[in-house]
Formats: sequence, structure tokens, C-alpha cells
Amino acid sequence: MIPTLSINLHTLIGDDLKAVEAKLREAGLAEQHAAISGALEHLLASGGKRVRPAVSLLTARLLGGEPEHAVSLAASIEMLHTATLVHDDLIDGSLLRRGIPTLNAQWSPAATVLTGDYLFARAAELASQTGSVRVMNAFSRTLMIIINGEINQMFTSRGQAEREDYYRRIYAKTASLFAVAAEAGALLSRADERAVDAMRVYGREVGIAFQIMDDILDFVADEGRLGKPVGSDLRVGLFTLPVLCYMDDHPHDGDIAALLNGRSGDPDIVARVVEAVKQSRAIDTAQAEARAYVARAQAALHHFPNNAYRRALADLGDYFVSRNL
Amino acid sequence: MIPTLSINLHTLIGDDLKAVEAKLREAGLAEQHAAISGALEHLLASGGKRVRPAVSLLTARLLGGEPEHAVSLAASIEMLHTATLVHDDLIDGSLLRRGIPTLNAQWSPAATVLTGDYLFARAAELASQTGSVRVMNAFSRTLMIIINGEINQMFTSRGQAEREDYYRRIYAKTASLFAVAAEAGALLSRADERAVDAMRVYGREVGIAFQIMDDILDFVADEGRLGKPVGSDLRVGLFTLPVLCYMDDHPHDGDIAALLNGRSGDPDIVARVVEAVKQSRAIDTAQAEARAYVARAQAALHHFPNNAYRRALADLGDYFVSRNL
Repeated sequence: MIPTLSINLHTLIGDDLKAVEAKLREAGLAEQHAAISGALEHLLASGGKRVRPAVSLLTARLLGGEPEHAVSLAASIEMLHTATLVHDDLIDGSLLRRGIPTLNAQWSPAATVLTGDYLFARAAELASQTGSVRVMNAFSRTLMIIINGEINQMFTSRGQAEREDYYRRIYAKTASLFAVAAEAGALLSRADERAVDAMRVYGREVGIAFQIMDDILDFVADEGRLGKPVGSDLRVGLFTLPVLCYMDDHPHDGDIAALLNGRSGDPDIVARVVEAVKQSRAIDTAQAEARAYVARAQAALHHFPNNAYRRALADLGDYFVSRNL
Repeated sequence: MIPTLSINLHTLIGDDLKAVEAKLREAGLAEQHAAISGALEHLLASGGKRVRPAVSLLTARLLGGEPEHAVSLAASIEMLHTATLVHDDLIDGSLLRRGIPTLNAQWSPAATVLTGDYLFARAAELASQTGSVRVMNAFSRTLMIIINGEINQMFTSRGQAEREDYYRRIYAKTASLFAVAAEAGALLSRADERAVDAMRVYGREVGIAFQIMDDILDFVADEGRLGKPVGSDLRVGLFTLPVLCYMDDHPHDGDIAALLNGRSGDPDIVARVVEAVKQSRAIDTAQAEARAYVARAQAALHHFPNNAYRRALADLGDYFVSRNL
């Protein structure tokens, strides 16, 4: 299925994706400082898969939005995503992302803060190029949700081991941006409110599936492919779905109890828990949970005619839950 | 003139300013983290004079913009201003602003970065409440100009002693936001492009005058009123207009030469230069230069009918160049 998918995407929105790439690299200001252009080039070259732009572009094509506006939207979504990563990596002290040095690994904290700010501004400017006030509003509200989620995570999320907290966290962190990528793609067309809602549901559900798979990879991927150490969430005290599934089957696990009671992030315990989770059926259970989200996303697409764009959006969901495994 | 001015403002836009204050304090998200609300309350209580909102509100009233949209715009401008201050203070390590502890004096760098980000998002959301795509675009481009200016300042501005650099810097830092406050106020009405341009000129010129006066106060105000040490710009290697005026009259000053050649920020030299500038006619010369900008701002207002709102905008310019002196 995956090779078919990439061929489909290339045929369907290859030119749009190229236009997005060009727009991302376009200078924002005529007098933009060379350091910003350099940082942006470095960030964009580190190889995101542009899955969020693909969601916006396919949605706009499905519903008949103006292609030029769709390209601005898609670039705006990817720029916003990049901006949040810049500040995230600074805050977490991450030195690698996708195996490539982060900005904060090379620059001062001050320069990193300002570069992230500039990318936020540029993302907002790209969003304004869609010509849609509703897109702008959805865009800025999503940024609020993402940042509010990070503040929650900083102040209160460590050591939370409830599914409700987990799903609230990954909605804020990841699914909210997929949701707006799809919703705003619909807002660019003359689609009615029910269609906009259906696309928002699609985006949210595939976004949740995407993040669950990311959290699974944090256990099972090898570090070379991951570009960072495994078990990174547990190291900072965050419980993700694979651990929660493991806990369902092992409610009295001593290592888990230790992590939750004063030894949060202890490297020896984390290493043992990572191994235990990998050996258990928790990975399969978590993946099945991700697949259920994709099924809900695909059900939301039934609102629309069954054409190549709808099929590509459905395939994208399948791809998210199979990627790299 | 100042007491008359404040009475005018109160009569003319007192209710609008109250509505702006309420909007600034309104939670952005239903589930907004308490830490954000607390930080916002602290920041807003530290007593800005709301001069930027006043520019937007008076412009909208002058040109007949929808009052509700004008209130959203004015709140958005003040929120953007506040957000930039949060990151500025963090980057500069400033512990006091207007005599009140900064956010970074009390919080971790990470929490301060995220709070600033949230305020940027909230500012964008408030701007989207104006319902104007052109306002959103002008807003995001201004944020890019401000941040690009800070990056320039970080990488290249120290020890620059040319008027051209100085004016470029204060345009980015201060005047660009006044310019958009006035321009966007005009965009909310059905005013034609010439009117929008005239208001943009007004905002830019009073903004420059405002910053020149701020830079003069950095020399002549007492530290209690200033809420921070005098000479703070020179301490970090930034040459502002009073020093540039002093250098015009004293081209061979040894202390200035030392600051420019390897002893940038030296506290003893800075203290001597601050005294020398204060005793010289440089302060008067700089203030006259600020007054010339106000005169240009007032000339731009001749485009409009001479009513109470236009007079208040003109008075505001006079107020900027007389404040606290």
C-alpha cells in the first residue's frame, strides 16, 4: 500500500508540494537577516515528510479550494509546525532531531528564541495569504492550543498515567495541527459547515493516530533511524500509550510503580521498562488503538464523493499507522 | 497641554479603552492554564500607558471604523507589544520593567518562552477578530519586522554609531508597531489608500518620536521613575540619539572612542559618558529632533477633517515629546 500511496501523492499533488517547498524557502522580508534564512534552510532541509501540508492540499483539491490559497495554507501549517519544534527543542534541550543537530545545539538560547518567533510571524503571514479570516482565526486558536498544551505538560503532565491525560496531551501537541490543516483546507472552498466539520474530524483522528505511532516508535525503532535515544518520553517522566497498554496488562509492575513514585526518569528503570514494553503485546495493542482512530478518520471521509483525492486521504491514514514498522 | 489631553482621551475613547482592558484580560481558551492567566494579569497590571491602543482607537473613530473591530485591533496591538517584551526581557536578562519584576525574574526560561509564545498566538487571534485579512497581513508582517530587528540587533548592531542604523533600529523596534496601529485602524474603515498611507505615516513618525524620548529618558530620568538603571543602552553597547548628538559636537571624545574600540559597555566609561551627555546640549538637540518627527506626523493628519479625534491624535504626538520631562 505504501508505494502506491507515494505514487498517488506524487501524481495528485506533486506540483502543489513543490510550490509549498518553494514558498517555505521564500524570504519573508526583503531585508530578512541572513541568519534567519540560514536557519530556515537548515530546518527545512532536515527532512520532514510534509504530511501536514499533504492533508491541506488534498482537502483543498477534494473540495475545490483555490490552489494558490491551498499552497499558502499548506506552507503556513508546515512553518507553524517548524516554529513550535524550534522552541520545543530549546526547552527540552534536545540536541538532535531526525538525526540532525537542532538549532539550539548550534546557536545561543536568545537567537533560538528569536528565530522561533520569526517563524511564528512568517507562519501567520502565510496564513493571511489565504485571504480567509476564518482560516486565520482557526490558525491562531490552534497555536494557542499547542502552546497551552506545552505549558500544561511543563507544569502538570509528568507522571500522569491516565489515558484521558494522554489523549488530551497528544490532541494539543499533534492532532490539533492536523485538525486545522484539514479544516482550513475545507474553509478555502465553498464547502458547507458539515463538510468543514467532517474534515476537522478526519484531521484530528489521523493526527492522533500519527502521534500514537510516533510514541510507539519511541520504543521500537532503532536509534539510528529514530535520530534520538529510545524511551525519550519516559526519561522525562511522560507516559505514552505503549506504557499505558503495558500497565493495563501488568497493573502491579514494580518498575512502573517506582517511576510513578519518586524515581521518575531513573535511567536504569527506564531501560528495563522500555525492554519490558517491547517484549509485551502492548505495542500491538497500541497500534490497534491507532488503527481504530484511522478507521474513524476514514469514516468521516464518507461525507465526500469517492474520488482520487478522498482515496489519497484515506490511504494517508493507513500510511500513518504502518510507517517505519 | 497634558492635562487637557488626558481629559480629551477620557471623553473621546474612555469607554473604548475600558473595553480594550476587558478584552486583554479575557481568557483566550476555555481551558487556558492558570499560569498563563496569572502571568497575563501580572504583565497587564504593570501599567503600560496603552498609547498604542489609543492610536488605533482614535484612528478608527476618526475614519468611522466599526468600534467592536477597533477594540479587537487595539487589544491585539497591546498584546503583541506585551509578548515581544516578555521575550525581550528574557533575552536581555532584565529583571525589572517599569519597576516591577519581569516574568523571567520569577519563572524558568522555558516557562517564559512559552508564555511569550502564547501571547503571540492570542495577539494573532485578537487580530483575526477584526475580520480583516489586510489587518492580519499587516499585523504578521509587523511582527516579522520587529523580530528581524531584534535579530539584527543581536548579531550586528552593537557599537554602530550612525544615525541611519539608529533610525532603522528604532523603526523596527518601536515605530513599526505604531505604524501598524494607525494603518490598521484606517483599514477597519472604508478609507481610501491615501488615507491609509497618511495614517501609516502618522503612526511611524510619532513612533519614532516616542522611541527617541524613551532613549532620552534613559539618560535623564531618575532611576526610581525609570524603574531600571540609567544608561542601560550604552551598557549593552547600543548608541542612541542623545549620544549621537553629543558625538556631533564632540567628534574627538576619548571616552566615546574607547567605547567604540574594544571597551564597549565598560561601566566607568559609560558612567562618565552618561554624565557628559546630560551636561551637554545633546539632550535638547535630540528632543528637537523628536519634535520634528511629531511635526511630520501632525502634517500627515492634515489629510483628514479637523475634528476632536484628529486633534487628539495631534495632541498625542505633543504628549510623547513632553512626557516626564
